[in-house]
Amino acid sequence: MSQRTLRLTVEYDGTNYVGWQRQADGVSIQGLLEEALEPFEGEPLTVHGAGRTDAGVHALAQVASVRTRTLHDVRTLRRALNAVLPTDVRVVSVDDARPEFHARFDAVSKTYAYRIANAPVVSAFEHRFVWHVPGALNVEAMDQGAQALLGRHDFAAFQSSGRDVHTTERTILSITVGPERGQSGVRPGSDQGQPPLVIRVTGDGFLRHMVRSIAGTLVDVGLGRWQPSEVGRILAGRDRSRAGRAAPASGLFLVRVDYV
Amino acid sequence: MSQRTLRLTVEYDGTNYVGWQRQADGVSIQGLLEEALEPFEGEPLTVHGAGRTDAGVHALAQVASVRTRTLHDVRTLRRALNAVLPTDVRVVSVDDARPEFHARFDAVSKTYAYRIANAPVVSAFEHRFVWHVPGALNVEAMDQGAQALLGRHDFAAFQSSGRDVHTTERTILSITVGPERGQSGVRPGSDQGQPPLVIRVTGDGFLRHMVRSIAGTLVDVGLGRWQPSEVGRILAGRDRSRAGRAAPASGLFLVRVDYV
Repeated sequence: MSQRTLRLTVEYDGTNYVGWQRQADGVSIQGLLEEALEPFEGEPLTVHGAGRTDAGVHALAQVASVRTRTLHDVRTLRRALNAVLPTDVRVVSVDDARPEFHARFDAVSKTYAYRIANAPVVSAFEHRFVWHVPGALNVEAMDQGAQALLGRHDFAAFQSSGRDVHTTERTILSITVGPERGQSGVRPGSDQGQPPLVIRVTGDGFLRHMVRSIAGTLVDVGLGRWQPSEVGRILAGRDRSRAGRAAPASGLFLVRVDYV
Repeated sequence: MSQRTLRLTVEYDGTNYVGWQRQADGVSIQGLLEEALEPFEGEPLTVHGAGRTDAGVHALAQVASVRTRTLHDVRTLRRALNAVLPTDVRVVSVDDARPEFHARFDAVSKTYAYRIANAPVVSAFEHRFVWHVPGALNVEAMDQGAQALLGRHDFAAFQSSGRDVHTTERTILSITVGPERGQSGVRPGSDQGQPPLVIRVTGDGFLRHMVRSIAGTLVDVGLGRWQPSEVGRILAGRDRSRAGRAAPASGLFLVRVDYV
């Protein structure tokens, strides 16, 4: 039987998972999707994700691709997948893609948002989805520092040592620091009127912990520990020990993946 | 030592709790607050809440009162309480109240919001905070039906049998059905562009499961099972078996409590 390629858009609250990628122990998003698809295929298959989000990291629109022989229409597949997946992992859409589509290799850019609750108390409804930084933050200084990262650079200073890569060069296409736009209606309570601060960054690819290391460094700038100009010097130094600590996973969201 | 009365405003994600009220088994919000305050008092004390929210019901601004001998200032108390409470229960504010203030007896009205996700897929970030109703809802019919509940009535038809009360008469001061105002920025994914439907109801008091029974009944109207005019007939009949099923706890929020 001939194969087809499906493109899945997947949203998840990463709090309870070991991350996107299948691992020896713990529940992964990739593993959940593969298990949910297996009954349709009749045998194991592999789901490729655009971004390998780490443990505790969330996604609004992770993109995944899978080659399969199933003949079901995409609406039925979406409904069936959501019926078996846990409620904190949702398949937003299932579409037929061109046969050679690969979610990771074909991605042109990805956008991550890092959310910071800069308030004395974090809402009971937000604590899983932010980093709580109670001290006063100089947002202008953070945004100014962030601009040193724009463009093509060697981001070795913002990489965790965990993963082998061919090159530590990446291109950041845009980076902004500012309050989250829009307001929720009923839910935000303790932080009402004070939207989270969001670092939004688009790039052609990201090293391991790169966005979280950038967030940690920019918060150091925001707290006045470093001048904005220090960010460029840390970048140029290519020395991981000079950058700020990686910010916690809870604040990080894979927001979108772009293809040609 | 002389006593003072504190007024606490408390926000909680009720998902993991047995409700406001202390119970033989399970963790209650009241119990958590009393345990958190006990070290300041040196002995057990009682915290009174304005609304006895059931298991799984959330609060944006539950109001609680407590008589205590602690001399700490209110900022220190708030910080200390939030340091020991679980992150899904937050003390938004602590204020000194007049000595005889009682959160429940002095409350003039309470406002609840019931949130309905009327979309094919519920966001991974919203499933704990909505009732998922995938079928098309006629919102105008729901709002029309709701208006029959305005004013002072015997709400026996919308009461669960669980609790003894002197009277089943209550006054509904306002009730509206419509899309939640405002939009979140980064977070809403699968339901983006489609805010939840909210039934917002203010009354001088509520019977057990009253808001959830109203929500269940109005959804029956929205789905076309009943005409809007049926709501008034159910109310007049005072027969619990005629109203719709109580909607799930996950969608219900205690939004505010008003005092003179």
